[in-house]
Amino acid sequence: MKITKTAENSWQSLVDGVQAGNIRAMARLITQVENREPGWKDAMKAIYPHTGSARILGITGSPGAGKSTLTCEIADELVKRGHQVGIIAVDPSSPFSGGALLGDRLRMKKIFTLKEVFIRSMATRGTLGGMSQAARDVTRIMDAFGKDVILIETVGVGQDEIEVVKTADRVMMVCIPGQGDNIQALKAGVMEIADLYVVNKADLPGADEVMADIYAMLDLSSEAGQPTPPVLKTSALKNQGIKELVTTLMADSTDSNRQKDKREMQIKEEIFSLMEDEVFRHIRHRWEEDGEIAEAARQMIEQKKDPYSIVAKLLQGFI
Amino acid sequence: MKITKTAENSWQSLVDGVQAGNIRAMARLITQVENREPGWKDAMKAIYPHTGSARILGITGSPGAGKSTLTCEIADELVKRGHQVGIIAVDPSSPFSGGALLGDRLRMKKIFTLKEVFIRSMATRGTLGGMSQAARDVTRIMDAFGKDVILIETVGVGQDEIEVVKTADRVMMVCIPGQGDNIQALKAGVMEIADLYVVNKADLPGADEVMADIYAMLDLSSEAGQPTPPVLKTSALKNQGIKELVTTLMADSTDSNRQKDKREMQIKEEIFSLMEDEVFRHIRHRWEEDGEIAEAARQMIEQKKDPYSIVAKLLQGFI
Repeated sequence: MKITKTAENSWQSLVDGVQAGNIRAMARLITQVENREPGWKDAMKAIYPHTGSARILGITGSPGAGKSTLTCEIADELVKRGHQVGIIAVDPSSPFSGGALLGDRLRMKKIFTLKEVFIRSMATRGTLGGMSQAARDVTRIMDAFGKDVILIETVGVGQDEIEVVKTADRVMMVCIPGQGDNIQALKAGVMEIADLYVVNKADLPGADEVMADIYAMLDLSSEAGQPTPPVLKTSALKNQGIKELVTTLMADSTDSNRQKDKREMQIKEEIFSLMEDEVFRHIRHRWEEDGEIAEAARQMIEQKKDPYSIVAKLLQGFI
Repeated sequence: MKITKTAENSWQSLVDGVQAGNIRAMARLITQVENREPGWKDAMKAIYPHTGSARILGITGSPGAGKSTLTCEIADELVKRGHQVGIIAVDPSSPFSGGALLGDRLRMKKIFTLKEVFIRSMATRGTLGGMSQAARDVTRIMDAFGKDVILIETVGVGQDEIEVVKTADRVMMVCIPGQGDNIQALKAGVMEIADLYVVNKADLPGADEVMADIYAMLDLSSEAGQPTPPVLKTSALKNQGIKELVTTLMADSTDSNRQKDKREMQIKEEIFSLMEDEVFRHIRHRWEEDGEIAEAARQMIEQKKDPYSIVAKLLQGFI
């Protein structure tokens, strides 16, 4: 199969390949869509009707919480239960991205060789169209391929990373013993997005204290009568608690209103983000091209015009 | 003076107040512009012709590097030399923002009482129109008031913080002994923006090693024939090296091409950022209003339409 990236029918052949379960076609399509190669939107339009059946799980937590090992064990358990699993690693230090110690990679070897598991790492900086959109696109391609559970692993720091994990159906927050202070710190950004808490490395001293901290935090912030998110203990390295975790992750949400609201918000965010991306590129292109920006910059340097008037003038007749 | 925020002439009276050197008017105008109260753009247009004479210095570095104490000493020395100083603190843990230990605040007391110094702290999250634009606006108001040197202190982590410091004319990077590894890590994001390096707490062991690390890094990255940024030693607590630092900061740049390129880039960035902000609000407002987004979201949930086609249709006739 000879695929050139410009011809329209080659996009179609890639999309066909993805649907037929061709792994190479999936990997190529992901790369070309990530690079925003001409025609990527048509490819995504063709992919879209074949999506919507995968369950998308976000896995976040601070560095060193054992997210990758946990992701590995969850994927392994899912495969045992007959699932087809996709993994998207947004953390550059993740073993999935090749950034970790050799020992980690060796331990996770079983995942890399399972034909039911497809792993893709994503750059964290400078992703065209934003990381969240890239995550959505990659998720959809995996979904159309036939992956019915997709795990998005991302380190829980930074606004971008939080945006990525917000594209998931359900978000799991990984904590570890000895991180009590961190839980307080994480509160603000993560509380609204976490649907499930996991205390990993629960065989270490201090696990019960972290559990108590999480419960206390949930108590403080939950509204009366609302279901609170589950809190589970695991030890990924010893393969403890994984079965229960996977069962919980795959169960239907106990809070269907929250799920519905979340889905609507996600869709609106995607529409706005695609729209803004499009308008951005249009704006930058248009005014770079015809020299208006250069002229405006000159006038600003000479203190002849202020930026607010310049922008108002540039946007005249546009909005 | 009775000021209401809605009437057009009250904006004018605030602007007049700022120009007349009324501190209360300056503080109010900053707040109202930060909050994007109706008419803020007209106020900024009126302010603009009175700006452009202040020197804007960015001060960045990791937490604990002593940026605030250094900022304090620099401001003190500037006042001694007859300057009017504005300080913008973007770091919420800065003593300027009230976030630090009592001891720090006490030590910095002299600054808080100097009439030549005006201090303003800025929220780091959720700033309307973005933190960089807020910094630009606040800087201009201080400039129009008559502050001829404006120090922007920001913690050197996070994309947002880096964007803020990029609005300065000249950026000073603060390092301390024992941070050799950090210098490596900081390289990527900060190298392009730092015009000057300071090794603070230079009385501690390891100062020379940090100096050597910085020189080594600069050697590796500088182009042949290009001037390399100055590297200075200070001990802010002992008031050592401050005079030399201030003299260097206030001297003309040795690299006028770099300064010119930087200025042009800053102006373009501001125009684009204001433009995008405007278009954003327009987009969100327009489609939220007429229910098109809600209808589009419904179609997406029912898997009837893909987001890419929805966005293309929404933007038809718009770009």
